[in-house]
Amino acid sequence: MSDAISPLASPFPALPAIAGATPHIVRAGYKDWGRCDLTYIELAEGTAVAGVFTRNVCCSSEVELGRQNIAQGQARALVVNAGNSNAFTGYRGREAVEQIMDQVAAHIGCAREQVFVSSTGVIGVPLPKDKARAGIEAALLAAPCTWEDAARTIGTTDTFTKGATASAMIGDTRVSFSAIIKGSGMIAPDMATMLGYVFTDAAVSPAFLQECLSAANRETFSCITVDSDTSTSDTVLAFATGKAGNSPLTSFDSPGADAFAAALHDICRQLAHLVVRDGEGAQKFIAVSVSGAVSDESARKVGLAIANSPLVKTAIAGEDANWGRVVMAVGKAGEPADRDRLSIGFGGTWAARDGQPLADYDEAPVAAHLKGRDISIEVDLGLGEGRATVWTCDLTHGYISINADYRS
Amino acid sequence: MSDAISPLASPFPALPAIAGATPHIVRAGYKDWGRCDLTYIELAEGTAVAGVFTRNVCCSSEVELGRQNIAQGQARALVVNAGNSNAFTGYRGREAVEQIMDQVAAHIGCAREQVFVSSTGVIGVPLPKDKARAGIEAALLAAPCTWEDAARTIGTTDTFTKGATASAMIGDTRVSFSAIIKGSGMIAPDMATMLGYVFTDAAVSPAFLQECLSAANRETFSCITVDSDTSTSDTVLAFATGKAGNSPLTSFDSPGADAFAAALHDICRQLAHLVVRDGEGAQKFIAVSVSGAVSDESARKVGLAIANSPLVKTAIAGEDANWGRVVMAVGKAGEPADRDRLSIGFGGTWAARDGQPLADYDEAPVAAHLKGRDISIEVDLGLGEGRATVWTCDLTHGYISINADYRS
Repeated sequence: MSDAISPLASPFPALPAIAGATPHIVRAGYKDWGRCDLTYIELAEGTAVAGVFTRNVCCSSEVELGRQNIAQGQARALVVNAGNSNAFTGYRGREAVEQIMDQVAAHIGCAREQVFVSSTGVIGVPLPKDKARAGIEAALLAAPCTWEDAARTIGTTDTFTKGATASAMIGDTRVSFSAIIKGSGMIAPDMATMLGYVFTDAAVSPAFLQECLSAANRETFSCITVDSDTSTSDTVLAFATGKAGNSPLTSFDSPGADAFAAALHDICRQLAHLVVRDGEGAQKFIAVSVSGAVSDESARKVGLAIANSPLVKTAIAGEDANWGRVVMAVGKAGEPADRDRLSIGFGGTWAARDGQPLADYDEAPVAAHLKGRDISIEVDLGLGEGRATVWTCDLTHGYISINADYRS
Repeated sequence: MSDAISPLASPFPALPAIAGATPHIVRAGYKDWGRCDLTYIELAEGTAVAGVFTRNVCCSSEVELGRQNIAQGQARALVVNAGNSNAFTGYRGREAVEQIMDQVAAHIGCAREQVFVSSTGVIGVPLPKDKARAGIEAALLAAPCTWEDAARTIGTTDTFTKGATASAMIGDTRVSFSAIIKGSGMIAPDMATMLGYVFTDAAVSPAFLQECLSAANRETFSCITVDSDTSTSDTVLAFATGKAGNSPLTSFDSPGADAFAAALHDICRQLAHLVVRDGEGAQKFIAVSVSGAVSDESARKVGLAIANSPLVKTAIAGEDANWGRVVMAVGKAGEPADRDRLSIGFGGTWAARDGQPLADYDEAPVAAHLKGRDISIEVDLGLGEGRATVWTCDLTHGYISINADYRS
């Protein structure tokens, strides 16, 4: 945890216990720090699992093995190592992950493929096997902890601890969700890693859980950016223990499936926003809403081009209604756009319409909006029905200080 | 011009006069500044022209008309307005450009299509037609100026004046090149615009001039980035007056064509480097060399992913040999790469080979290299014969100050 807490931080919410999912934390000592850095979450027999992973082709062994193991659909444990990402460490890194999987599987008496491992921290240093072994041994004996403890322990350079909750009615049964996430602080010379975990007591088939998670991911985690740099280790896993006793969900035809999918989507959006709110150096939370695109996917790409533009992000940091930079970012996105149909606004006030500055544009409400913490940029491409919202933060001196003002 | 000159600046070279190309400058007063801001360059009858333009779909009318008019292959004049990009100004912007073309064409007695216009500066404000008309009137009467005067006049927030020269032997005839460029400083709330102009006295057909310029562009202007933001107005034009009296070049089969193409390539590379050396906030000039890719184009894309990564650029600013961030950038590029064949070095010293940190990696020479002004990053993908070099600068507090620390 950093000393300076993000001005966009929100307090850790009250997360319900999830029957069948029990967190534990210990200090493996992956770094020379006086804090817990190994999280072990035991999952009840029959827990369904789904996951989405980084598309970075230089991904870690954790991501590689996790992606393989999702296929069999069941999980009995999750291990998260903080302080070392174990990425780009060749066969030694892979051996360390396999050792953890074997050790936990032997203890629980489950298949190795049902143990999921994530690691976050410095790249290029193999995870020390002796520390991992001793850490796991201690974790298997440790007393349960709170979700907040677990959320704090998976963090690295995060400036605040991040969790979210949701619930849904399936028939007469209320199912609960608790979720934790880390990511986007970066003070050590490490790469940002986003790791998120959603736990629910709902009974859901692995295939339907994956369908809901993938759909939620497309409109939440895949619609945020802090600095356009994709980590080697990004992972979001959803675990459903089935302990709520609802009639199991297997598709959108199951009663209550829509409510479940909506709750999962809601919690993913909450988690994604928390990561942006802890973006490196962030002073403002920015929502970019694009409408009138030829498709939703095209709208998302245009939104990301705007959200990744250093010139747009520095303009917002400077509280400057520089809509010309938004025009530029739309035009470079590589997606269908027509300059003469393009409209741009801030906080609900149009600055330019149909390819020209508005004759009666009143900058006063826009200037007032830009002084706030929560900023919205509206773009209408005027071409079709495609729409998307993308979230990011501003680009400030804080980002440079975090990432350049040191010598490793 | 900014007060603080880039530490990477180089002095303006001695540029030869080019027979048939005569520059003039005047003060049109597009901004409230006490400097010349309109450049008029008259070109001899028979001057061949070629051009490359921004791919930003929200391009200015100047770009749109220039792209159309290149087709007929001949140029008689170039007008460059500084202080107003005239982009995103609808029909009013277009009328201003057409007025300039008509006014100059009437004076020279040439076709309107032979007059090329560029504008650079703030977006969204139509170029004032009265100022343009009076400025052109004065320019048509002004005495010729030097290339350095012209280079200074096309600049906006550049911190130094940029020019380059080259020459080539075509048979027994020496042909000369003089070129000027502006771009990449950004202190006002404007978008960076790169405008470059190459003048040669060689006799060349328009088609072959275009072929050589397009080829040079692919390995020079298309291989630089300061902040990944593509302008609405980028333009590079090459003019060949034919006054050197060489036997005209019409293809690579013409004697001397190789020497001509090499000289044009050389001058384009010089100009491109000058823009990076004036990158906003730049403290270091970075060359990213990628080899072992499946194709040259794939190597270029990987190089640009590295050169556009804020985490790589801040690491270089911090003189930090953070090769893990280079791994990340390679992995996110979307191009073929194999983590376990990837090698990364700085200044000729390998830090990681074949997917793992080097056991005997000595950071001392790398640390010494990173303290310098000229930095090289080497990446070998280990897959094929494709290679490319991309140039950029570091990302510093200066960039944030230039682009965020004001309120327009």
